[in-house]
Amino acid sequence: MVGGGRGAFIGGVHRIAAALDGQIELVCGAFSADPGKSKASGADLFLPPDRCYGTFAEMIAAEKALPADKRMDFVAIVTPNHMHFPPAKMALENGFHVLSDKPATFNLAEARELGDLVRETGLLYGLTHNYTGYPMVKEARDLVRSGRLGRIRKVVVEYPQGWLSTLLEGSGQKQAAWRTDPARSGAAGCVGDIGTHAENLAEYITGLQILELAADLTTFVEGRLLDDDANILLRFEGGAKGILHCSQICVGEENNLAIRVYGEIGGLEWHQKEPNSLLVKWPDQPTQIYRTASPYLGANATAASRTPPAHPEGYLEAFANIYRNFAASLLAREEGRPPSDTENDFPKIHDGIRGMAFIEAVVASGKANAAWTKIPIS
Amino acid sequence: MVGGGRGAFIGGVHRIAAALDGQIELVCGAFSADPGKSKASGADLFLPPDRCYGTFAEMIAAEKALPADKRMDFVAIVTPNHMHFPPAKMALENGFHVLSDKPATFNLAEARELGDLVRETGLLYGLTHNYTGYPMVKEARDLVRSGRLGRIRKVVVEYPQGWLSTLLEGSGQKQAAWRTDPARSGAAGCVGDIGTHAENLAEYITGLQILELAADLTTFVEGRLLDDDANILLRFEGGAKGILHCSQICVGEENNLAIRVYGEIGGLEWHQKEPNSLLVKWPDQPTQIYRTASPYLGANATAASRTPPAHPEGYLEAFANIYRNFAASLLAREEGRPPSDTENDFPKIHDGIRGMAFIEAVVASGKANAAWTKIPIS
Amino acid sequence: MVGGGRGAFIGGVHRIAAALDGQIELVCGAFSADPGKSKASGADLFLPPDRCYGTFAEMIAAEKALPADKRMDFVAIVTPNHMHFPPAKMALENGFHVLSDKPATFNLAEARELGDLVRETGLLYGLTHNYTGYPMVKEARDLVRSGRLGRIRKVVVEYPQGWLSTLLEGSGQKQAAWRTDPARSGAAGCVGDIGTHAENLAEYITGLQILELAADLTTFVEGRLLDDDANILLRFEGGAKGILHCSQICVGEENNLAIRVYGEIGGLEWHQKEPNSLLVKWPDQPTQIYRTASPYLGANATAASRTPPAHPEGYLEAFANIYRNFAASLLAREEGRPPSDTENDFPKIHDGIRGMAFIEAVVASGKANAAWTKIPIS
Amino acid sequence: MVGGGRGAFIGGVHRIAAALDGQIELVCGAFSADPGKSKASGADLFLPPDRCYGTFAEMIAAEKALPADKRMDFVAIVTPNHMHFPPAKMALENGFHVLSDKPATFNLAEARELGDLVRETGLLYGLTHNYTGYPMVKEARDLVRSGRLGRIRKVVVEYPQGWLSTLLEGSGQKQAAWRTDPARSGAAGCVGDIGTHAENLAEYITGLQILELAADLTTFVEGRLLDDDANILLRFEGGAKGILHCSQICVGEENNLAIRVYGEIGGLEWHQKEPNSLLVKWPDQPTQIYRTASPYLGANATAASRTPPAHPEGYLEAFANIYRNFAASLLAREEGRPPSDTENDFPKIHDGIRGMAFIEAVVASGKANAAWTKIPIS
Repeated sequence: MVGGGRGAFIGGVHRIAAALDGQIELVCGAFSADPGKSKASGADLFLPPDRCYGTFAEMIAAEKALPADKRMDFVAIVTPNHMHFPPAKMALENGFHVLSDKPATFNLAEARELGDLVRETGLLYGLTHNYTGYPMVKEARDLVRSGRLGRIRKVVVEYPQGWLSTLLEGSGQKQAAWRTDPARSGAAGCVGDIGTHAENLAEYITGLQILELAADLTTFVEGRLLDDDANILLRFEGGAKGILHCSQICVGEENNLAIRVYGEIGGLEWHQKEPNSLLVKWPDQPTQIYRTASPYLGANATAASRTPPAHPEGYLEAFANIYRNFAASLLAREEGRPPSDTENDFPKIHDGIRGMAFIEAVVASGKANAAWTKIPIS
Repeated sequence: MVGGGRGAFIGGVHRIAAALDGQIELVCGAFSADPGKSKASGADLFLPPDRCYGTFAEMIAAEKALPADKRMDFVAIVTPNHMHFPPAKMALENGFHVLSDKPATFNLAEARELGDLVRETGLLYGLTHNYTGYPMVKEARDLVRSGRLGRIRKVVVEYPQGWLSTLLEGSGQKQAAWRTDPARSGAAGCVGDIGTHAENLAEYITGLQILELAADLTTFVEGRLLDDDANILLRFEGGAKGILHCSQICVGEENNLAIRVYGEIGGLEWHQKEPNSLLVKWPDQPTQIYRTASPYLGANATAASRTPPAHPEGYLEAFANIYRNFAASLLAREEGRPPSDTENDFPKIHDGIRGMAFIEAVVASGKANAAWTKIPIS
Repeated sequence: MVGGGRGAFIGGVHRIAAALDGQIELVCGAFSADPGKSKASGADLFLPPDRCYGTFAEMIAAEKALPADKRMDFVAIVTPNHMHFPPAKMALENGFHVLSDKPATFNLAEARELGDLVRETGLLYGLTHNYTGYPMVKEARDLVRSGRLGRIRKVVVEYPQGWLSTLLEGSGQKQAAWRTDPARSGAAGCVGDIGTHAENLAEYITGLQILELAADLTTFVEGRLLDDDANILLRFEGGAKGILHCSQICVGEENNLAIRVYGEIGGLEWHQKEPNSLLVKWPDQPTQIYRTASPYLGANATAASRTPPAHPEGYLEAFANIYRNFAASLLAREEGRPPSDTENDFPKIHDGIRGMAFIEAVVASGKANAAWTKIPIS
Repeated sequence: MVGGGRGAFIGGVHRIAAALDGQIELVCGAFSADPGKSKASGADLFLPPDRCYGTFAEMIAAEKALPADKRMDFVAIVTPNHMHFPPAKMALENGFHVLSDKPATFNLAEARELGDLVRETGLLYGLTHNYTGYPMVKEARDLVRSGRLGRIRKVVVEYPQGWLSTLLEGSGQKQAAWRTDPARSGAAGCVGDIGTHAENLAEYITGLQILELAADLTTFVEGRLLDDDANILLRFEGGAKGILHCSQICVGEENNLAIRVYGEIGGLEWHQKEPNSLLVKWPDQPTQIYRTASPYLGANATAASRTPPAHPEGYLEAFANIYRNFAASLLAREEGRPPSDTENDFPKIHDGIRGMAFIEAVVASGKANAAWTKIPIS
């Protein structure tokens, strides 16, 4: 693991997610840029001191030097955005698979370079767009793929938050500080942090790529260096239209990621706030409430639940599903067989490239007064 | 009453709304362009044949000729859009107050002409943007006006419907037929029909006018002559930003008019589907559920309820509140006193002009590939 | 109209409900036991002074003396409970139909006497158990009647309120005062006021009569003279079991009447708080959300809506549906034909007798430490 | 671990719950009464064969023989109900702490014996009444304890399920088979399986013990040997009254455990289906929606969350909170200090005794036609 030392948020989430199914064990880490803090963080996690490294470079070199059956199987990257690319690149170059927090890199050029590297090395690369790990999101995708909703016409996806409605970064709060800092977060603020989740969710469920967008970006909080609000018009492959709005100044909102998709025949609606329900809508029939782990769900949603129906699942389980499928794909590879459709269901470098292209297009459009801006199809 | 003969929808709603409080009595009508049908419709309503007219012109002339204490007090107009302006104009010119269905007119020029006429005659003009009649919408406005939410930053307003997701007008369905016909509906389809309600709701609650917008208009259903979907970026006075989306192809949706408003201090959320709840949001305190008729509500919301707390109110009561305040203002006028703030709380010709300007700006922007288009402030 | 003078609550509701469809006109009234107040109340309602009577006896006599085409068609009774029986009895004895607020009478003996009188006179008698007027309640009944849920096994019905969680009657509040006064309310407090609504709703939807019950009655608020809370076990015809709880000390609750019914095949759930949704449940299929005025509803629910789908209906419309069906039955009678199933769908004296029997059984059981107590089947 | 071999449900839940925080490691197990299956199950979990035992007796003996720093720290018991007591007893007698699935034992006598043993040995005993692990349930308890709701008057607690609405046990389904078998499940069916959860939740939140109850027990499904439905009147210490109903024939229901508590000043409502919201109700103020991990929560709810606000938590995290506090108490003990209030917050043998007493009282009352039956206070 790279990053995730004491005081971090997402590192702990990754560790729980990785451990949840008892198939993945944390064996080493470079938990902090401060070697002493890295060792201390590793000790908290019951790791031997000699596998708590001062830097990711040190870690990759040392682990590579270990016998194959002792060394780490893959690298999990849980650092702030600007530190995603360097360890991912080095890991791949040294033969290690990679599971990275999102966004994949600091900019699109890096993401493409990583894409080339993944293709060349043939190694696995996973990206924790964790919301796609929810069973009902998988069911939504499968409903669209089945054609039961008809050709998709409209997508409304949104991710309002309220936690940055004041200049929290001015107080020294660690999460706020790096997420609003262009040097660590990248060209975009709320668009990079949460807008990409919304973009990824829309493309994951619909199977359609965004072709172009018009983005009205705003920084509402005085003194902030990056956008904290975005209203975006979307046009998809195949003629579908959409709205994406995300914000960190929607005071009182939690992580209200939500999506509605309407096809020619039917529609669907999902809210992260109540993640175990999926509303499925029809023109002349009652709306149906699909529920996690129910017997009528498809294979991917079913595989994504650990408990029988009626046991609410949450964020950590969804996150763990990324790890689980990544690990299952790794295992398939070790067994010399292709992964199943379900095992292969986790975000990859393609999602990372899409995400970075989305961010750059949004920022460009925002600077051009919301002019239509194309996203390269990939 | 002009319009609202047999087979109409909104005419019946107006009649119930007008009668609900026992203060307004239907005394005459030109219910249909077909004089026989007009008489028959009047007979259904227990009106004497001599006050069931063949045309609105005939009605206005005949009523004017009656002694002052016998003639109608005001004209209610419930025709399709293209027939709103002519009777309104004639009524005002002949000394009758007007209460009209929305949109006020067929185009902006007519609306402005009507505005001039209202100013010149000093008569009352009301417009049934009925959603502003809900008690919790009034409370939302008062919360913003009180400053308790702080300066407004963001507005998300939406009105998805699904009833026109197929070419229903091709089947001869009366409502669908005129609403999708440019000759009767105007320059816009779903934007004129329901988008204006969303626009009016946003301006009513926030007290802010939309300065400019960028609209992506679509006609999804083949063979349809007007837009059936719109995604619109909004910029308001004072720097607030917003999203407005409306659609008639969101299959499975009813009249899901909804609004969220976020200020610097607090936010609010209201859904027509559950009109008696208003969510009020704070950064570090629990979200509150305000409920219709509760003791903690302000004067306008309180006046808008006919029952004690806990009796769900609906669309008809909200509609009736427009009539009630209009009638109360009329009475105040007869009593020679200015109406109270509460009595004066109904949509007026200013709202009508705003609505028509909004429609024209949306259509212009839509034709210009969603270019930013200004709305004249009024 | 008997009762419903200035300051009353339910009288105004009855008047709106009666007027809503433009088929019923208020022509006279004895609005108050105080003749001056009765006249003043009538003047508020634009009634001529000579038809505003000082007592119901005076009203019945005077109206009877009018020519048939001038006199009132039926008497609406909207007084406190102890004054339901005397005017109902006199009206029936003098040839007038009756529409009464609930409970039908002050005690079971009176209700039976009224039942005999209705049978003997052949006149119409309606009772405003208004919650059965909601379209989705009618749909629930029809779902059960259709057999689609299978044989009914379990019913959970509840009516928690919070408005009497303190000794409000001590403050002189008019509604609280008579509802907690044994001389005006009857043998039971919250059980008579709202428990009967719950009982009626359960019997209406399931079509099953309660055979016996065990009731734990409590008066929580010190100084109160009647029960303000009841927890009741139910046993129905055919072996179904149930729970009924009602309360006026559930602080923070509005009129949260709700019911769940489970059959061998399917279940349903309805809440007055969101009266336009009916949840229909199946063992291995998604729960369905039935909505008011939707095309898939049955004839009775359809007839109970005044607007197309997607216009929320509320308490007043539900109340008006009782009046509407009562009036339609009256009209059918005048036309010399039997009412249709839909026209005939309003609560009758049978419901009144059931309600009074329920109240007496609950009170008896409560006094006997919740011993099982039978309700006579009728 | 005792039980939880291949094909079991709750064993896997316990393992995930134990592992979630990285503080507990599974070191050995007697996973099945079939030694071969036990070894195979252990192999699935990467355990060495020599610590996969054929019986719990063998396991306890062998582990006790290991050096103190090698042997297991505590025994987790995840067998069907009839096999809770024997391993718990033996573990305690041999110096091992115990964490057991619920109900604690097969009958009240065993539970009392276990209580004595816990007191005598001074060892830790935890019981996985997992619903008390939800943060919002902890907040509910703390709200009551703080006195902010006033003296408690009424409790409505319910646990409807639908999965046994047919004779599923006849199909050989493993979960259904043992839960409906008196020899393995105990004297009660749904009351023992889920009614005890409801009872525990009510006592946990209110801090009040049930003094007496009147239970109407039913077996609706023909051929079933135990109750599948219960409607129960409750009387608590201090005069509070309540309703508890639980069922496994409420077709279409999941695990809809829910509770409402009303005090003299305020009320609260919680539903397992949306476990991250707690409704807090007041007489003259808007209802508040408390949410998991929010800054305004108390210490116990806060400690029970692993993520910042807005990340939905579920069943597994709640379950893990039992393990976490149990482990923290164990650690405190090793550190020679008393556990903090938060660390000490997990169900103990007292809850187990209460649960068994509740079951026996319900069964006795059920057999006596719902006669009032006392539960011994402890």
